[in-house]
Amino acid sequence: MIVVMKRGATPEQIAHMIERVESLGLKPHPIYGTERTVIAAIGEKRDEHRQSLESGAGVEEVVPILAPYKVASLEVKPEPTVVRAGSLAVGDSHIGMIAGPCSVESESQTLATARAVKAAGATALRGGAFKPRTSPYSFQGLKEKGLEILAAAREETGLAVVTEVIAETDVALVARYADVLQIGARNMQNYRLLEAVGESGKPVLLKRAPAATLDELLLAAEYILNMGNPNVMLCERGIRTFEAHTRFTLPLASVPWLHQRTHLPVVVDPSHGTGHTNLVTAMAMAAVAAGADGLIVEVHPDPETALSDGYQSLTFEQFETLMHRCHAIAGAMGRQIASNDRPL
Amino acid sequence: MIVVMKRGATPEQIAHMIERVESLGLKPHPIYGTERTVIAAIGEKRDEHRQSLESGAGVEEVVPILAPYKVASLEVKPEPTVVRAGSLAVGDSHIGMIAGPCSVESESQTLATARAVKAAGATALRGGAFKPRTSPYSFQGLKEKGLEILAAAREETGLAVVTEVIAETDVALVARYADVLQIGARNMQNYRLLEAVGESGKPVLLKRAPAATLDELLLAAEYILNMGNPNVMLCERGIRTFEAHTRFTLPLASVPWLHQRTHLPVVVDPSHGTGHTNLVTAMAMAAVAAGADGLIVEVHPDPETALSDGYQSLTFEQFETLMHRCHAIAGAMGRQIASNDRPL
Amino acid sequence: MIVVMKRGATPEQIAHMIERVESLGLKPHPIYGTERTVIAAIGEKRDEHRQSLESGAGVEEVVPILAPYKVASLEVKPEPTVVRAGSLAVGDSHIGMIAGPCSVESESQTLATARAVKAAGATALRGGAFKPRTSPYSFQGLKEKGLEILAAAREETGLAVVTEVIAETDVALVARYADVLQIGARNMQNYRLLEAVGESGKPVLLKRAPAATLDELLLAAEYILNMGNPNVMLCERGIRTFEAHTRFTLPLASVPWLHQRTHLPVVVDPSHGTGHTNLVTAMAMAAVAAGADGLIVEVHPDPETALSDGYQSLTFEQFETLMHRCHAIAGAMGRQIASNDRPL
Amino acid sequence: MIVVMKRGATPEQIAHMIERVESLGLKPHPIYGTERTVIAAIGEKRDEHRQSLESGAGVEEVVPILAPYKVASLEVKPEPTVVRAGSLAVGDSHIGMIAGPCSVESESQTLATARAVKAAGATALRGGAFKPRTSPYSFQGLKEKGLEILAAAREETGLAVVTEVIAETDVALVARYADVLQIGARNMQNYRLLEAVGESGKPVLLKRAPAATLDELLLAAEYILNMGNPNVMLCERGIRTFEAHTRFTLPLASVPWLHQRTHLPVVVDPSHGTGHTNLVTAMAMAAVAAGADGLIVEVHPDPETALSDGYQSLTFEQFETLMHRCHAIAGAMGRQIASNDRPL
Repeated sequence: MIVVMKRGATPEQIAHMIERVESLGLKPHPIYGTERTVIAAIGEKRDEHRQSLESGAGVEEVVPILAPYKVASLEVKPEPTVVRAGSLAVGDSHIGMIAGPCSVESESQTLATARAVKAAGATALRGGAFKPRTSPYSFQGLKEKGLEILAAAREETGLAVVTEVIAETDVALVARYADVLQIGARNMQNYRLLEAVGESGKPVLLKRAPAATLDELLLAAEYILNMGNPNVMLCERGIRTFEAHTRFTLPLASVPWLHQRTHLPVVVDPSHGTGHTNLVTAMAMAAVAAGADGLIVEVHPDPETALSDGYQSLTFEQFETLMHRCHAIAGAMGRQIASNDRPL
Repeated sequence: MIVVMKRGATPEQIAHMIERVESLGLKPHPIYGTERTVIAAIGEKRDEHRQSLESGAGVEEVVPILAPYKVASLEVKPEPTVVRAGSLAVGDSHIGMIAGPCSVESESQTLATARAVKAAGATALRGGAFKPRTSPYSFQGLKEKGLEILAAAREETGLAVVTEVIAETDVALVARYADVLQIGARNMQNYRLLEAVGESGKPVLLKRAPAATLDELLLAAEYILNMGNPNVMLCERGIRTFEAHTRFTLPLASVPWLHQRTHLPVVVDPSHGTGHTNLVTAMAMAAVAAGADGLIVEVHPDPETALSDGYQSLTFEQFETLMHRCHAIAGAMGRQIASNDRPL
Repeated sequence: MIVVMKRGATPEQIAHMIERVESLGLKPHPIYGTERTVIAAIGEKRDEHRQSLESGAGVEEVVPILAPYKVASLEVKPEPTVVRAGSLAVGDSHIGMIAGPCSVESESQTLATARAVKAAGATALRGGAFKPRTSPYSFQGLKEKGLEILAAAREETGLAVVTEVIAETDVALVARYADVLQIGARNMQNYRLLEAVGESGKPVLLKRAPAATLDELLLAAEYILNMGNPNVMLCERGIRTFEAHTRFTLPLASVPWLHQRTHLPVVVDPSHGTGHTNLVTAMAMAAVAAGADGLIVEVHPDPETALSDGYQSLTFEQFETLMHRCHAIAGAMGRQIASNDRPL
Repeated sequence: MIVVMKRGATPEQIAHMIERVESLGLKPHPIYGTERTVIAAIGEKRDEHRQSLESGAGVEEVVPILAPYKVASLEVKPEPTVVRAGSLAVGDSHIGMIAGPCSVESESQTLATARAVKAAGATALRGGAFKPRTSPYSFQGLKEKGLEILAAAREETGLAVVTEVIAETDVALVARYADVLQIGARNMQNYRLLEAVGESGKPVLLKRAPAATLDELLLAAEYILNMGNPNVMLCERGIRTFEAHTRFTLPLASVPWLHQRTHLPVVVDPSHGTGHTNLVTAMAMAAVAAGADGLIVEVHPDPETALSDGYQSLTFEQFETLMHRCHAIAGAMGRQIASNDRPL
């Protein structure tokens, strides 16, 4: 941490801040520059409340030096983590392909989709049974009935089931049916929920909130890792920006940036990340080229009648094209889209 | 809802979309323009899944016409709602002033702050007992012990207690001690929590998430109102933008915009909304001038040693200045900062 | 400048960066922490290309310590600058009120507006003769004819004329008619134009570009100041964010932040800053409460038929209300809206 | 255009707006819904000032239906435009690869870079002679001397020269040396400059401003096309968002979105689009996979000592790797990175 004093800071103010740094158990290292004095604070801890130093008299700003996350960092574990869950493997050389409807609407819709995405090469099935919806008047999901349908689809196709859990009190129920617990973007900082899925031990797909920094995403992952659950996949699904021609802006530089800092695998969601069917395939290809360890894609037998997210869902045929093109890109990079039971 | 067809849309595609609109129970009204055909869909419901029409062949976009919220709207209730909770009244001509520490750290810190803000004219006490923290390694709050301290401060000062609840499973506990349940920005779309505070019947202070649109904020309020709890205060606390000289960007136009659409009172948080002590007072004054029905401000006996948010907390003296200046602005507007027991 | 080395940086990499810092004429000051080595670089210059150090092997990041602007800073000139131009005075205790149509459309429209805003208490007239328009198919302004009309309005009302100049090659022409040269948001980083208005010696109103940081705004001002022209007013007119209910987001914290760093006066544009007539007055009041040294407001005899920006223009009556309310706020702050010839 | 009336709009207000629509030469088409009346306005023109209707009494909002650009649209010209300039071809199946230093610093630096990027397969040379710099104290470029060096590099390597022009008054000079005139992000809405490069007839590379919508980018292109110059390449170089781990956020969905609306080729700048050397290659690959028609990349013999943008410049070796990987991706897509004189 570097405490930058204001230009006019008095010797007393500087002396006071040096004492404050010491009182936090850190070793102060003042540097008297020509225009400013800065105090470097050396030590091991990184607890956040030190930024309170910023309110000290004569202080201009406090610049943190250490990254705030630990267990997620490459410094702690340099080898990439591979998360495995049934048919799904994500990380290192394995590219996982998770596909399915936004919401589980019925058994026939879900089974038809599961069969189609399996045939096209998907390695896991997504589908929402508990749906967090912006409006209380929107379809809220089939709940446990939806989970049963997903389990039936797994039974038939062998695809691992990825499904969202939206409340701490539902974790046990959802974990009984799911292979991977998804934390949606709205819940990225619902810490009780993060702790609960951490305790469950189940693999977790953690989506970035649309205004979260990547440090905040990694700290959210840290809540899960901290409970002893190492199986966390990070998911970039787009951020809120001024752009209105897409529902969210998909910042693919997240992928290499995260790979340079964390061992956790990075999945990309080109469906929410664009919000328009006709942009999904190009961004899926771009995500694979950027180094993504997996994709999660919305597919529906008839997007026009979908109870949610139809505007960004692919038809079976569109998904087949996406798979075909992503295979080509992965091949050009020496990687492979492969299921866990057909290892590379 | 207006369905805008692409320029080259075929008669079949147009006919198909007309049928689709009818199948949703709406009356289609096609308009054949010189460059585009648009289909206006007339009807009463506003459920969101209709945007799935956007995936129809030949469709360019679907433009919603109706606002998605109902109960919160001025159309349903044209008179401003006044939320009352102990000493606090917020809305219409009443400006509420909620002040106190970010976190309850100890009895002495909290009582000293409560006395100081009461003396300066605050009409309620804030203080966090359950703290949602970005990092799992940060101070997480004193929990029930913190609630007890807040209750003791109310006992002594008569100030209503505003405190955050971060989990559905804590609502009953927190409601036993608090006068107002605060939903933090990270939980604005934690729908189970919204439903739970809705059921509790306690007044709620609902903070805007930093990437939420105002429609999304109103829909979150709608989750609470929908459970039969009419006592909702909206809180603007800043959004995430590219600006880095403030921690968040405080968009005060939210205040008049909301007043033109909802009967719910609007509170502003200039502490989180700026993230820097030396910007808080100016923005508090600006918020009152923009028409805010209340402020929520962080105050600490010694911000430099605060366990959280010290960089944006005011000293007692700074808060006194803030109150003094806000009184002047309120007066110039014909409004008053007043407690519930000393009505206007 | 602080060069932060990566955790694994080798002694050779550290030694190399120490040499690089020296080769830039700076004094390196390495600090060997428990997890990272940082090299503080002490010296006077602040030229930007040093950030190229960031590409050095083993370097994590380079953190600048000094603000990049000089002449605009309070450190160089602690007293607030008052900019005067005919009837207009802006800065220190003077609040200037600039009002008028977006575009000069005709003599009658402009004169009527000038009379009305003068009667309501405006201290200068705005009006665009050269209009930078997003679309080449939009009205581009009356050009020199527009300037003549503005001069006629000044003749009659005594109001100083504020008008935009959009090209280096027009500066001489516009300066013949105008009292204040306005640099629009689109041209904030048109450096040749900044240098040309700097050379002209005329007072300048410099608008913030919608994606510019405040440091970038101050550096743009520095281009003008650097040419020996000290009469620069900064103008906050809103930034591009994800918010769509306003055309731009008006971040009023800019006002106190700038006042704490620069002696230049700060004007706020609540018309562009909101983009909707019915939000302008509330935000004008909020701007004054935040400490703005002036406002610039769009007023039109008949907004519905305006050739540009009708959606955010006030009628004469609405402007009168705005003036009335802003006077009240200014009074509550011990400030005054006053023209240069009727000094405080 | 759809005029949406407020819920409580009176019959008089509705009748008045119908008249207003007619007075603009449009055919009004009122639709009386259950909650709102909307007036569809049918006609051909798209001039922007109609949004002034929004200030009409009883009007909620005005929703435009037609895209505001014309000549750039696929509707006007369905075949992709291929821009050719010396060795460079961009568009359709041709992927152009423009590489070189941010600034021309010296003959040796520029020639060495030109040789290296040519050897690695680049199809054009970039290099700035006139540098628009955020700070007046930064290196401003070698100006005409820089142009001469670029011409010498073309002489030797055969690479077309792409270089920025920052002022209307420099266009003739720069056009004498350059094969492609680059309009930088800061000047995207410098309309006089756009008109001047339009008149020059030279191919233009038009960069998106960091807060510009894609509609605004296309309208800027329209200024150039409108002068009779059809050779415009659009360039996505990143937008300003809240993300701070990259200098800008690179939204690659721009590529397919633009391809679905315009015939103009789309080039991506992964150097400015990330701002960090170690993210450039991954994003270059992603851009090609997203369908980009070209890349523009900063390369420097010794990034650490670059006078500008060293933090995002590649070494020769890094650029060779980038080319190698982009070739593989292009191949997987059935496209080719190829120079104009070695056609596909």
